[in-house]
Amino acid sequence: MSVLAIGLMSGTSVDGIDAVLVEISGSEGDLQVSVKESAGTAYTPEERKELLRISTEATSDLQSISSMNFHLGKKFGEAVNELLEKSGHTAGDIHFVSSHGHTIFHQPYKGDGPLDETNTLQIGDISVISDATNIAVVGDFRTADMAAGGHGAPLTSYIDYLLFSNSDRSRAVQNIGGIGNVTYVPKNGRRDQILSFDTGPGNMVIDEVVYRVSGQTETYDKDGRYAREGRIDDGLLAFMNEHEYLQVEPPKTTGREVFGSHFVDGIFEKFGHLDAKDLVATVSEWTALTITDSYKKFLIGKDNEIDEVIIGGGGSYNPYLLERIAHHLPGITVGVHEDHGFSSDLKEAMGFALLGYQCLKGEYNQLPSATGADHSVIMGKVSFTQPDSFARMLAVRGE
Amino acid sequence: MSVLAIGLMSGTSVDGIDAVLVEISGSEGDLQVSVKESAGTAYTPEERKELLRISTEATSDLQSISSMNFHLGKKFGEAVNELLEKSGHTAGDIHFVSSHGHTIFHQPYKGDGPLDETNTLQIGDISVISDATNIAVVGDFRTADMAAGGHGAPLTSYIDYLLFSNSDRSRAVQNIGGIGNVTYVPKNGRRDQILSFDTGPGNMVIDEVVYRVSGQTETYDKDGRYAREGRIDDGLLAFMNEHEYLQVEPPKTTGREVFGSHFVDGIFEKFGHLDAKDLVATVSEWTALTITDSYKKFLIGKDNEIDEVIIGGGGSYNPYLLERIAHHLPGITVGVHEDHGFSSDLKEAMGFALLGYQCLKGEYNQLPSATGADHSVIMGKVSFTQPDSFARMLAVRGE
Repeated sequence: MSVLAIGLMSGTSVDGIDAVLVEISGSEGDLQVSVKESAGTAYTPEERKELLRISTEATSDLQSISSMNFHLGKKFGEAVNELLEKSGHTAGDIHFVSSHGHTIFHQPYKGDGPLDETNTLQIGDISVISDATNIAVVGDFRTADMAAGGHGAPLTSYIDYLLFSNSDRSRAVQNIGGIGNVTYVPKNGRRDQILSFDTGPGNMVIDEVVYRVSGQTETYDKDGRYAREGRIDDGLLAFMNEHEYLQVEPPKTTGREVFGSHFVDGIFEKFGHLDAKDLVATVSEWTALTITDSYKKFLIGKDNEIDEVIIGGGGSYNPYLLERIAHHLPGITVGVHEDHGFSSDLKEAMGFALLGYQCLKGEYNQLPSATGADHSVIMGKVSFTQPDSFARMLAVRGE
Repeated sequence: MSVLAIGLMSGTSVDGIDAVLVEISGSEGDLQVSVKESAGTAYTPEERKELLRISTEATSDLQSISSMNFHLGKKFGEAVNELLEKSGHTAGDIHFVSSHGHTIFHQPYKGDGPLDETNTLQIGDISVISDATNIAVVGDFRTADMAAGGHGAPLTSYIDYLLFSNSDRSRAVQNIGGIGNVTYVPKNGRRDQILSFDTGPGNMVIDEVVYRVSGQTETYDKDGRYAREGRIDDGLLAFMNEHEYLQVEPPKTTGREVFGSHFVDGIFEKFGHLDAKDLVATVSEWTALTITDSYKKFLIGKDNEIDEVIIGGGGSYNPYLLERIAHHLPGITVGVHEDHGFSSDLKEAMGFALLGYQCLKGEYNQLPSATGADHSVIMGKVSFTQPDSFARMLAVRGE
């Protein structure tokens, strides 16, 4: 049987709520999911300001945290109800809602105090959502992973596995956000065969170079236009290829502290005399190479064959970057999430719907190898405030 | 079938955790529960200090709230594991744990801000408890009632109904804490026939008078000794009987602001010349009368017959008070919780086990008439971090 579920995501950018209605069937390793409808709900300026305020240690307070937990629950409930109206469905059609909540605190390491624990705090009470929608709600996933000794993140690797596991094709699911990250999903793969690591910079270096050469008027290389008209400079390419991160064996993670402004300062110091377009072409080529070389070195080179690369994130809208990645991976299909029926913008909200689906079936929905947990857990809490929403939720188990 | 469950309570006195192992069968209106084992776990001075600090708006902070949510989850988990060891059971015998959590904020009214909502915040993460025990955990009950427009309290009336509903006997379940409160459970009664109100003072006036006449050396009338040697003063009795609260029709609630120090000041002002024992005897007699007269006026007088009174709370250990209540209710059985197999000290922890039981069966576990909610809800969130704890939890439904 298939079930209808709604996934909700409120990201750290504090812009608003992504809601997606999906149809799901099957189980881990052979799961089918299709997007039926999606909608975004923006936070008001007041809501955004308050969320930022209570997420900051110096300005947060007990009463506001508790009150906002309820306010967001209602707001999430409204987002669900608006999506339902847009889709032509009613609550009675929906088996469950799955909500990430909004993170106001996340501390994956222990503090110094004797009572300190690793901890995370997502607000947007699931009972409030359930009461506002008359649908069972799963949410607050990260705490269980952290209880098991994990960092409560990333959850994306497992979501990529659920979304893209295939009996015929081994896939590299590549996100190109600020940083690049790959989840390797071998064909017919088991959960313990999934690999995931940060490949290096995503758009971070390209964006910063474009920002500087455009006199701070452009923030990214729209449609890859700069790069396409430039010429690759071998000296700069060799310089960047020497970066030590590229040699480190996975698992590994990186961030803005490694590939941010400071790194680009180094480029301009030695190669600032290059033509603007050549600079962008070269860092774009290099970004593509950090991805494809890491596949060759750490995946294909270790007998993890790749049939297909599926790219998402902002970088998937840079056709030049995609071309260069494909160029360096002859014989491998290179596509984007849209080729599989959905925008990667929706992946997080879809992903939480899938985590909720696994939870309600009583099946593990986390990868210890990705989060660092010392054992597998079923993440998520469940609330069902009415007997009929409870009955629909039970149907997820296929009873 | 019957199930084994563990109830956990951490009260506002911040002393520690009450844990009780109970066997439960049946359903609302005909529910059987028996206590198998119980244990208390005290908070360390550091834990108590920290809980008080983070429950106070001026001293609370975001990081400590989030960290303590995890610390208490682990502590609750230890309380469960210690109770299991004491009882000779293992996690595999237990169908679920049900935890009230520890309340660090409760605001049953809206603030002035545009984003303010009624709200409540209980900590002691249920996923952390589940991971620490390998048992499914229900908890965080009050939010659903508040989402439905209720005050998130009192939950006791419904618990009294579950515990004492009987096909043959109509019962008044009387708590005598600082304040007196009755839950009326008619024989064969439905949930919408339950009545509950504060009868007036519980031990509050007796304790304050004893404190003053003993030169601040005694805090309560141990075994009713003062009262038993005193003589009831008709003038004082008539004076107190004029208190307007006693005339107000239920539903009604009262508190320390009505029957605290200020009220006792009034007694001493006019009757301070009386003998110490006479004073205690008279306020004890009056306290008994506030209870029995309220039954006669608001229950029996309105065709709500009473076969049996079941008294709990600190006042149930004052034999003089019990005698006087029985004296004024001829033909009605007057007993204590212990007559029904458990101390009223365990009632809260037992009660939350029962609320969890109802939740897992997908049945309402709240009384809108008691909390002010505008509709019935199933309170509680559920977490089950392992497939085997999930399976045992499902068995509660009698599958």
